[in-house]
Amino acid sequence: MNVDGKHYETIWLKNDNNTIIQVIDQRFLPFELKVENLTSIDDVYTAIKDMHIRGAPLIGAAAAFGIYLALVKFNNKSPLDEYLISSADMLNSARPTAINLKYALDKQLETIEKFDSLDEKKAAALDTALSILEIEKENCRKIGEYGLTIIEDISLQKGNAPVNILTHCNAGWLACIDYGTATSPVYMAHDKGINVHVWVDETRPRNQGAKLTAWELEKHGVPFTIITDNAGGHLMQHGLVDIVIVGSDRTTINGDVANKIGTYLKALAAKENNIPFYVALPSSSIDWNIRDGLTEIPIEERNSNEISYIKGILNGKIENIMITGENFPVSNFGFDVTPAKFVTGLITERGICKAKRKSIFELFPEKNKK
Amino acid sequence: MNVDGKHYETIWLKNDNNTIIQVIDQRFLPFELKVENLTSIDDVYTAIKDMHIRGAPLIGAAAAFGIYLALVKFNNKSPLDEYLISSADMLNSARPTAINLKYALDKQLETIEKFDSLDEKKAAALDTALSILEIEKENCRKIGEYGLTIIEDISLQKGNAPVNILTHCNAGWLACIDYGTATSPVYMAHDKGINVHVWVDETRPRNQGAKLTAWELEKHGVPFTIITDNAGGHLMQHGLVDIVIVGSDRTTINGDVANKIGTYLKALAAKENNIPFYVALPSSSIDWNIRDGLTEIPIEERNSNEISYIKGILNGKIENIMITGENFPVSNFGFDVTPAKFVTGLITERGICKAKRKSIFELFPEKNKK
Repeated sequence: MNVDGKHYETIWLKNDNNTIIQVIDQRFLPFELKVENLTSIDDVYTAIKDMHIRGAPLIGAAAAFGIYLALVKFNNKSPLDEYLISSADMLNSARPTAINLKYALDKQLETIEKFDSLDEKKAAALDTALSILEIEKENCRKIGEYGLTIIEDISLQKGNAPVNILTHCNAGWLACIDYGTATSPVYMAHDKGINVHVWVDETRPRNQGAKLTAWELEKHGVPFTIITDNAGGHLMQHGLVDIVIVGSDRTTINGDVANKIGTYLKALAAKENNIPFYVALPSSSIDWNIRDGLTEIPIEERNSNEISYIKGILNGKIENIMITGENFPVSNFGFDVTPAKFVTGLITERGICKAKRKSIFELFPEKNKK
Repeated sequence: MNVDGKHYETIWLKNDNNTIIQVIDQRFLPFELKVENLTSIDDVYTAIKDMHIRGAPLIGAAAAFGIYLALVKFNNKSPLDEYLISSADMLNSARPTAINLKYALDKQLETIEKFDSLDEKKAAALDTALSILEIEKENCRKIGEYGLTIIEDISLQKGNAPVNILTHCNAGWLACIDYGTATSPVYMAHDKGINVHVWVDETRPRNQGAKLTAWELEKHGVPFTIITDNAGGHLMQHGLVDIVIVGSDRTTINGDVANKIGTYLKALAAKENNIPFYVALPSSSIDWNIRDGLTEIPIEERNSNEISYIKGILNGKIENIMITGENFPVSNFGFDVTPAKFVTGLITERGICKAKRKSIFELFPEKNKK
């Protein structure tokens, strides 16, 4: 999407060099737009683990480039097969909840296996990474088109009064390649002249909402208001939210949705107040092997410093300050699972379906193993 | 309660001077324990409005001292009656949601009216303020005794495994005079040797949980863990919360509860996961004139800077840093209303009752006007 009128994506191959991947380093937003060069699998691992880049579709794509960079740097010290498997294991371990990571790595390994020479493998790995990029981008665009129809309907019902959309975390273009998942329908509606306004949950502890989603919307010119994660229920009780749209890090075939911690609380409030609660996700975020989100999706626990410290601007400089008492015990779960019964629908690249096994497989029949 | 072994309360008359009120200035906790002198009604107004002190019972007591200080400074420039009414109006306007403020002010004005001379009025106002202090303290102690029985029961059921109590915001002794409301049963259980552990919601935007409740518990030696406001639902889904206890800024006669923004979301999650959700409150937080919390309780909107900026420690100094993009629009609702149907029970100074009109009036029959 646009940043001050210039089109950006989150990850790309450097213009003049096939062995340098460039990404927006999201740790400095909204204060500074920094581009980082990734030239090795270690760079990619660190960028994913320490969240220079985040978001299920984006870390999947980045991991595919990570395998490509591993091949570029391959030095024949160990057998290639072992090297590739341990490379994929390393990248997969960087973040446990999003399934996109595993899918992208599996796809890379399958592709590479088909070729004999190292040069062919390298070329194939680069092609695969670039094609994942294109597919994810196109999937987000399609999610936008399908999701747009829902927003249009609400806008019609409201006589073009602003459609108030609540979102949690950043399921925007920064989490993907372009467009975003949850934000894609919002951008399309806005670009089409529909009156939209986004309630942006700040999304503690890392404040991806206040820092990333707000920045995205501001740069693209979409009206928004930042709220604390505590406020959504109150807004819903008072008719100030027309629809909730969030992303997903992993969705089961029964429609249970793992997403940023706190999503579940918003789903409960939406249900109680009869507000549609949609999850926008490419099929690369569906885990076709599991049914029960609560017992089967691993929930990442992250460093307590993410809660005890926060980054901000003081006297024009980016600083990290301690906001709890020294050594106060802190627990930092990264995700929660919203059971399917609270999800009005899934917005995918193939259309909108219910958060139900039957409905999901109607859109993706080739995934149905039974 | 205790701070490093020394007993503290939140507000007291300075030892050697009847015209100086001292309070713990909560803005600097947990980083620094500062005591502030309040010597005029303006000091009290600022302390309440800018949250040097906060919490429904505490601001009620402080407001009573505010009227006393107004009398001390009375200079005969305007008629005393008008002066007192405008003084009370000013204090009452400092925070709109807690009803304790209004009750304490009404009580002061009624008392003062009964006496003729300015000296008698002053003495009576001081007595009233001091008696409000004692009553609130005693009420919190009784809330602790009644609430303790609930924690004891859970502890017995769990075979003395830790009772996990989730609380939101600070309804601790810092919000009252001593003991606290929601925390009073916790302190009593802990002091009695019952194994308790508190999940402390950090409570954005002002982080009264992470900054005040955590500090209180740490200083008194009660085990606790700070979590983001987003995490409670996940913990409840996984059986990690045995009971939720929160305070209240205003409760209606039908049992609807206004409390810190985000309380409602925790109540929804508790209901969904069959976890008891109790509200601990002295009767001074019940508004005997209203029934419907959602339409009748005014919800304070506070300055957006409370969300855009956060206070913390950098290089040993307390600093205030900007954590959103410059001029990003922000909305800051201070409270929400939890409808009575989500409340398992109210823990009051007269015992535990259902969040229902009939049950509330059984404990407080003298308040039933019909």
